[in-house]
Amino acid sequence: MRKKHNIDEILETGQELLRTQGYNNTGVEEVLKACGIPKGSFYNFFKNKEDFSIQSLDWYGETQYQHVQQILDNNELSPMERLKDFYNSNAKANIEENCANGCLIGNLSLEMGGINDNIAAAADRNMKRILSLISACIREGQKRGEIRDDYPAEDLANYLHNSFYGTLMRTKASKDFSLFELFQRATFDFIKAK
Amino acid sequence: MRKKHNIDEILETGQELLRTQGYNNTGVEEVLKACGIPKGSFYNFFKNKEDFSIQSLDWYGETQYQHVQQILDNNELSPMERLKDFYNSNAKANIEENCANGCLIGNLSLEMGGINDNIAAAADRNMKRILSLISACIREGQKRGEIRDDYPAEDLANYLHNSFYGTLMRTKASKDFSLFELFQRATFDFIKAK
Repeated sequence: MRKKHNIDEILETGQELLRTQGYNNTGVEEVLKACGIPKGSFYNFFKNKEDFSIQSLDWYGETQYQHVQQILDNNELSPMERLKDFYNSNAKANIEENCANGCLIGNLSLEMGGINDNIAAAADRNMKRILSLISACIREGQKRGEIRDDYPAEDLANYLHNSFYGTLMRTKASKDFSLFELFQRATFDFIKAK
Repeated sequence: MRKKHNIDEILETGQELLRTQGYNNTGVEEVLKACGIPKGSFYNFFKNKEDFSIQSLDWYGETQYQHVQQILDNNELSPMERLKDFYNSNAKANIEENCANGCLIGNLSLEMGGINDNIAAAADRNMKRILSLISACIREGQKRGEIRDDYPAEDLANYLHNSFYGTLMRTKASKDFSLFELFQRATFDFIKAK
């Protein structure tokens, strides 16, 4: 009997192809083959490759959101320690992949942000959901006097996260993993209360 | 009479296609058409698309190197002011393009860094040449007591530049150009001598 596929299985396999290979380097045929589904099933779930990519971004974004939430909700650590824990675990996961893949949201932002407004909007929406968790943790750290409060929490969240993404971009080409330590040292040096 | 093409003209046109569209979204046929050259001429200059991309990175990298050098050699400004001037002009150039394109070195680092070692090495080599100029300017600022010296100049250069690239990535999807101001404010707040 033919196995029935659901959209979650297809997105789980498909978003990983997009993350590791990029949008323009991943054909629909390849997705069909990797998922073991006929063309008809794909177009039953997705209008086109753009729609598949947007749903992949939302699938990946939700997975990441839950992962970040779990780390930043850990009340056994202080807000600053939780943030360090989050970026450490993120750096570690990337180093384990030899920094070959990175983050689907960041990758599609840079590859497609200038040429496809719908994909750009999906990347931005998912990035902002995650940033809202980071802002909330920073705000808690500011209230406790652990994090500087002369910048709004949202600004510090953007600043931290952008620095991390620049580091991800650089390590993808250079494989110089010490850049993660520099990121960690310098940004946390910057955000800590003086 | 048929116009003779030189490699510089092809690289000038070709690297712009790569920068605005990406590697996998730019076919050799499209480059031939944009440059108005026959296939034979292309393969006379380049072994293949990879080689064309590497030579494009070197062409773009050299142009950028000279541009950065010109700004950072301006002795009428202090090292800190020169650095601000550089990142300001870089942000301005990106905003003028609605942040749709960005930097060829950064774009290919993220699109190809995980799947093509030769392109990754070319991106990294060109990035490091530019970083050497930024480090030298920071070192001068440290000697003059204008820039903090508890971090090596190379670390501050990497940190500044990575933060800027993360900002470029974010603005490409979000079109939130205020992120450049945040970059400028926070990183220069961080590197200034206390």
